[in-house]
Amino acid sequence: MSLKINHSLTGLVREKRPVIHCITNYVTAGDVANTILACGGSPIMADHPEEVSEITALSDCLLLNIGTPGGTTKAAMEKAGREANRRSLPVIFDPVGIGASRYRTETALSLLREVKITVIRGNASELRILLKELTGKNAGSGNDSVSPTRGVDASFSDEIREDTLESLTVATRALSAATGSVTVMTGAIDIASNGEETWLIRNGCPQMSRITGSGCMLDGIIAAYIASTGPAPSQHAIFEAAALATAAAGLCGERAAKKAEQTLSGTGSFRCCFLDEVSLLDEDTLKGGINIEVS
Amino acid sequence: MSLKINHSLTGLVREKRPVIHCITNYVTAGDVANTILACGGSPIMADHPEEVSEITALSDCLLLNIGTPGGTTKAAMEKAGREANRRSLPVIFDPVGIGASRYRTETALSLLREVKITVIRGNASELRILLKELTGKNAGSGNDSVSPTRGVDASFSDEIREDTLESLTVATRALSAATGSVTVMTGAIDIASNGEETWLIRNGCPQMSRITGSGCMLDGIIAAYIASTGPAPSQHAIFEAAALATAAAGLCGERAAKKAEQTLSGTGSFRCCFLDEVSLLDEDTLKGGINIEVS
Amino acid sequence: MSLKINHSLTGLVREKRPVIHCITNYVTAGDVANTILACGGSPIMADHPEEVSEITALSDCLLLNIGTPGGTTKAAMEKAGREANRRSLPVIFDPVGIGASRYRTETALSLLREVKITVIRGNASELRILLKELTGKNAGSGNDSVSPTRGVDASFSDEIREDTLESLTVATRALSAATGSVTVMTGAIDIASNGEETWLIRNGCPQMSRITGSGCMLDGIIAAYIASTGPAPSQHAIFEAAALATAAAGLCGERAAKKAEQTLSGTGSFRCCFLDEVSLLDEDTLKGGINIEVS
Repeated sequence: MSLKINHSLTGLVREKRPVIHCITNYVTAGDVANTILACGGSPIMADHPEEVSEITALSDCLLLNIGTPGGTTKAAMEKAGREANRRSLPVIFDPVGIGASRYRTETALSLLREVKITVIRGNASELRILLKELTGKNAGSGNDSVSPTRGVDASFSDEIREDTLESLTVATRALSAATGSVTVMTGAIDIASNGEETWLIRNGCPQMSRITGSGCMLDGIIAAYIASTGPAPSQHAIFEAAALATAAAGLCGERAAKKAEQTLSGTGSFRCCFLDEVSLLDEDTLKGGINIEVS
Repeated sequence: MSLKINHSLTGLVREKRPVIHCITNYVTAGDVANTILACGGSPIMADHPEEVSEITALSDCLLLNIGTPGGTTKAAMEKAGREANRRSLPVIFDPVGIGASRYRTETALSLLREVKITVIRGNASELRILLKELTGKNAGSGNDSVSPTRGVDASFSDEIREDTLESLTVATRALSAATGSVTVMTGAIDIASNGEETWLIRNGCPQMSRITGSGCMLDGIIAAYIASTGPAPSQHAIFEAAALATAAAGLCGERAAKKAEQTLSGTGSFRCCFLDEVSLLDEDTLKGGINIEVS
Repeated sequence: MSLKINHSLTGLVREKRPVIHCITNYVTAGDVANTILACGGSPIMADHPEEVSEITALSDCLLLNIGTPGGTTKAAMEKAGREANRRSLPVIFDPVGIGASRYRTETALSLLREVKITVIRGNASELRILLKELTGKNAGSGNDSVSPTRGVDASFSDEIREDTLESLTVATRALSAATGSVTVMTGAIDIASNGEETWLIRNGCPQMSRITGSGCMLDGIIAAYIASTGPAPSQHAIFEAAALATAAAGLCGERAAKKAEQTLSGTGSFRCCFLDEVSLLDEDTLKGGINIEVS
């Protein structure tokens, strides 16, 4: 089945310079801001409940990430999320480390009840735990039970490999059906679904899991791409933009890994090269490098 | 009109190693700390109201940045600011994103009422909004009305270009007159004023607006330079140090851009090279490269 | 006196991928996460009192750093620390800037009363202040009185030099005796002691004090190494792992400095190269490069 994809988003982001309101963790906030700038967007970080509604109102997209939830995170995310919903702005949600504590899980579930989410992005452990919490059903990995997360990394049984791909695809699709959101499950292979369509993205490289914030930075690119699809994009256009952004980030990772390897460098240089590649990416490079197939 | 500038500050900072107490945002805190270290200062980040007065008392300069205001930010900044005033320490203030929310605007205005500020640094949108809030007057950009910020970036009509330079110079000077502070408005061209003297700084490069924290890092250099002018520097000496620091940061940006372009790199490498240049800058390089003129 | 050291920890960390729960400052949190990943561990940052116990329970080691104490830091650290003690997990503690404010000092002292600490790591000023607070005794630097910190940096009289080495060794040993913890005092020379054994580590380079977070990143490596020694390591094994981690970080600094100097680069490149070296370090390189002697 052949795929028609609109690669021009790469350039559109740089033209439109969408403002992305980020309520995110303090560990990778700088990396997320730099990634959004590198792909062409304009980030603003603001998380005080007193100001988030106004900030969201000035923005083109809202990005929520529960990586380091604090005392006012839940209130801030819900206020900003409701404002985004009122204005029909896209909302990207990353349930970092869900399942690692009841507090984190409740924060995520409460948010999903209060706010309509456009895209959910996480690793296999995170998204399986979310699915279990929402539906009571286990799915994925060929296991009967959901394994606890290993910190913020996917557990081994939840790695997306050829032998786990089918069951994790089922889980990704089921989460989309349960939430009405586009879901993107990332790992060695990435899976994107809008409940009806499901695509596999075979870009990326192992080095991405050896730096912190690969997922958070991808969230930023997804936000910028989706904010540039409007106005009033179809569910398919959102799904396509999320998948394209995921492939773009993976491709930038591949290109960065090649450069870092040429100079026999490690993860410090890789991290620097990744941002380079995001800032240099153009439509032709993207077209020639992405590897997306229909599941 | 010829300018006599004391370039030796570059070396003085490395000799004196001034301690800079930073109450700043969590997005670029690490970048600010690294920049202060690179130019020769010693940063300490501390923002809990229970400890800020003591920390300020041990420091040579206070740097306040409202990039991500939290519940205790206002109290902490006002306590630290009053302690700095009591000890006649310089206070640098960056009203990041003022106007993006009423909460941020009130935080900035309250601070200006409670604390005597030595230097205010911001982009054209931020400083015009501040001027409007303080005086009720619009100035700059040839527009009648102050345009809302685009996130934390200056809006297009507020970019400092040849055609907006005159009116934005008027605004910078007016803000200095209204506050009694040295004001530094940064953009493609930078404008520094102490109300009586106004200088234009034509250093810098477009890449600086494609990484997060260019402004915050400049704040750190301004703080370190001013902290090294004492004891009891004149208003002109403070103004000169702020302008020189702005030119120095711009020059480091130019040199970093050249290096990054030579290797066909993007914003990740530029960011790394910028810090390199700040750490390598010496008096001769500064003397030969800065481009300051009297307005 | 010849030293028998188990260099295989370098590889063991990569094999075991220990999860390190970090309650740390927002300035260097990203650097600490990247360093832990680079040496083979898996970091999770979480500091809300509502979730820290559960996060610690899922982890292999707890890392506490009071670099930017907030309103809930003390409660979170004590809760997490008690959970770690209950499970016999190692606890690494970095009293950043202790003495710079009463609030910071009280936070550190309260933590030491409530939680059994495995390793304390700090510069000479920090550890001397801690010793003074705990025992009422001055020790180290040949001075009679403990000098106040210069921000978060050691004061000049507290630099570890050949002429201060003996008295600072006495202080390091005394702090270990007073706390029952392994203590690591870092500077131009590093001193590690478990009260009975004391080792000097002559790795490292001056550039490490020109980037922020060198100490915090070392804490992360110590945590990962100690978390890989178990189960139920002896006091000597813990001491050895802490000393080896300190030497490893110093060696990575030396190698990074060499690379940065070859390209005439500054602190930005050094920072990037340091992370590279941590990610590339193997047993043979470590064996050939570390410089540890018995005091």
